[in-house]
Amino acid sequence: MLIVKKFGGSSVANKTRIFRVAERCIEDYRAGHDVVVVLSAMGDTTDDLIAMAHSIHANPKKRELDMLLTTGEQVSVSLMAMAMQSLDVPAVSLNAFQVQMHSTERYGNARFKRIDTDRITHELDSRKIVIVTGFQGVNKYDDLTTLGRGGSDTTAVALAAALHADRCEIFTDVDGVYTADPRIVKNAMKLDEVTYDEMLELASLGAKVLHNRSVEMAKKYGVELVVRSSLNRSEGTVIKEKVKMEKMLITGVAADTNTARISVIGVDDQPGTAFRIFNTLAKNNINVDIILQSVGRDGTKDISFTVSEDDLDDAIHILEDHKEALTIKEITSNRDVAKISVVGAGMMSNPGVAAKMFETLYNARININMIATSEIRITVLVDKKDVEKALNAVHDGFAGQLE
Amino acid sequence: MLIVKKFGGSSVANKTRIFRVAERCIEDYRAGHDVVVVLSAMGDTTDDLIAMAHSIHANPKKRELDMLLTTGEQVSVSLMAMAMQSLDVPAVSLNAFQVQMHSTERYGNARFKRIDTDRITHELDSRKIVIVTGFQGVNKYDDLTTLGRGGSDTTAVALAAALHADRCEIFTDVDGVYTADPRIVKNAMKLDEVTYDEMLELASLGAKVLHNRSVEMAKKYGVELVVRSSLNRSEGTVIKEKVKMEKMLITGVAADTNTARISVIGVDDQPGTAFRIFNTLAKNNINVDIILQSVGRDGTKDISFTVSEDDLDDAIHILEDHKEALTIKEITSNRDVAKISVVGAGMMSNPGVAAKMFETLYNARININMIATSEIRITVLVDKKDVEKALNAVHDGFAGQLE
Repeated sequence: MLIVKKFGGSSVANKTRIFRVAERCIEDYRAGHDVVVVLSAMGDTTDDLIAMAHSIHANPKKRELDMLLTTGEQVSVSLMAMAMQSLDVPAVSLNAFQVQMHSTERYGNARFKRIDTDRITHELDSRKIVIVTGFQGVNKYDDLTTLGRGGSDTTAVALAAALHADRCEIFTDVDGVYTADPRIVKNAMKLDEVTYDEMLELASLGAKVLHNRSVEMAKKYGVELVVRSSLNRSEGTVIKEKVKMEKMLITGVAADTNTARISVIGVDDQPGTAFRIFNTLAKNNINVDIILQSVGRDGTKDISFTVSEDDLDDAIHILEDHKEALTIKEITSNRDVAKISVVGAGMMSNPGVAAKMFETLYNARININMIATSEIRITVLVDKKDVEKALNAVHDGFAGQLE
Repeated sequence: MLIVKKFGGSSVANKTRIFRVAERCIEDYRAGHDVVVVLSAMGDTTDDLIAMAHSIHANPKKRELDMLLTTGEQVSVSLMAMAMQSLDVPAVSLNAFQVQMHSTERYGNARFKRIDTDRITHELDSRKIVIVTGFQGVNKYDDLTTLGRGGSDTTAVALAAALHADRCEIFTDVDGVYTADPRIVKNAMKLDEVTYDEMLELASLGAKVLHNRSVEMAKKYGVELVVRSSLNRSEGTVIKEKVKMEKMLITGVAADTNTARISVIGVDDQPGTAFRIFNTLAKNNINVDIILQSVGRDGTKDISFTVSEDDLDDAIHILEDHKEALTIKEITSNRDVAKISVVGAGMMSNPGVAAKMFETLYNARININMIATSEIRITVLVDKKDVEKALNAVHDGFAGQLE
């Protein structure tokens, strides 16, 4: 079996942890498997390097920043190879140039285009554990790129896809994917299995277990992902295309507090108004999430939508700049809001989920500001102060239907 | 003019120094020159990385150690590019993969085989300052190698040769090449010019201004080297093929305390004895320096020679192991010795130099243990305690003849 194992920065933050990871990988190796290990930079290395860069240049070019940051993973992989060698296991570290991990041009946020497998396969064939730098690629100019935060997950999945690995294990500091954040919802349960789509909805809703792009890639290439703890031996959560549907109605409940509501008041109730507003925001790289449009009255209407809280100020600026052209009378906003979502593939064939959710929130006396749904998700916007209460209420409301 | 400028680790040890180097390079750039900068790792980075490696593995594989160490220069060059960019000068950092600095296979002590110039030339043509990682290469397996300590000098010279640079400036913490170590010999003077051969003799004798291999390479490719201070604006010392000979008899006086004497007593006075002894040592990578053989007597003779002090124990071990085969009766050694040398191309046509040297040492009551000469060098072995006195005596003795 060929296994790709990915460990984050905290798992390799010091000598003791490096050896713990080494031993864990060696177990699989000794069991006869081919093992490819993907590592992030040690501990806070990446943040430290970024701080160093900012001490030199207020806004360093991403090309040079990537050149700097990619050293972090190279340190991790070489030390890991030494650790395995000190345990008498043949190992070799490889960086993005050596593997030939071809990425798009874009510095700081590149995507993989193609990963060569020759070198890795050659090293595996000579029975070495292969340790690869996560988070980085090489673009067509032969420059180093990084994949953006959490990119090492993507590296692991991309390698698993390119190598046709039997499984791709992502090690984190949690036991797996839970029905809700266990720090907030005391009855949260670990899921044994979850579909790619459910994982994507959960991840985009703030369950920060996996980098979203890595799940998208796993879905695209059919890579069986396992999220498991680097701290214990529990089995973790398997993420794949299909899971035992009959057992599940709701997979999980998630909250996202990095959100804010904007309302544009009194815009012309004419075709094209909404298009112009959202097109203006899109051109300025503002992603809009839930949208709610009031029924028109007196020739005008109100449109509310959510953006990520980080984008709120920019979004308001842009709307103010185009206030006249967009026929906006007034702009209001609220950052004290949060999204609560229930996610589950079983929802598609069960129309009662939305009603159930609204009922549990009503019983908990939580006001719903906005509602949005997808095929496998229902999201409501509530006041930020109600997040914990809402999460627990919804989770408990569906408790019987959770796997 | 195309100028290659090399700065060592202490010159880029912190933000202030990085900017000082940046400004110095920018002056040449603004004067219209093409500028290539070669950097070592910041401050103690390399030592820190080595210590980190040793905390993981008592004797890490050199392949992985090189993978680790090469991150040090990559950090330097990316930060330098940011510093120049913050001063509004276009700059780009390149590592060994990007330049394609092809080296021999040998990890930890590789040599350059070929350096591609396409990428650098392309960046220079678009009027960027090009900042290249020193000390590192890529071997035929696509693995990173390092050139051994001081290797960044070699990188600079190799780049200057490949690019047909007009000059190659090596910045150090001294003003240039001196007639003797100014910390020991108070009358030591800075040389304006010195030949490659003289520099080689001086360097191999402990004047640690330049990495020897870099001087050999400069000589081979006719690269005009300049050694100058990174701390001030003094002109430094030019190292080239021919200098104004008429002015010079002696270029410098150097001491080397990393030496030890071994004597093998009572070996057979037969042809081949010396060959077998030195062949045995050579096969075990022990470099032998000065050799003195006594005239045979009673069918036996004594042979004395010097090795570097680091090799002394190994050398004695090896000789003990082969004592019988090499017909050695007894082995004696002495590590309390030092080599004192006078170097100068002018010596070739002036037979009085040796006599003058012996005279000055005799006047200072310093005992000479062994003597060895080359075309441009005379070396004597003295007791280690006499080093300072000997250096000053010889230097002052030749003072009138020093440039």
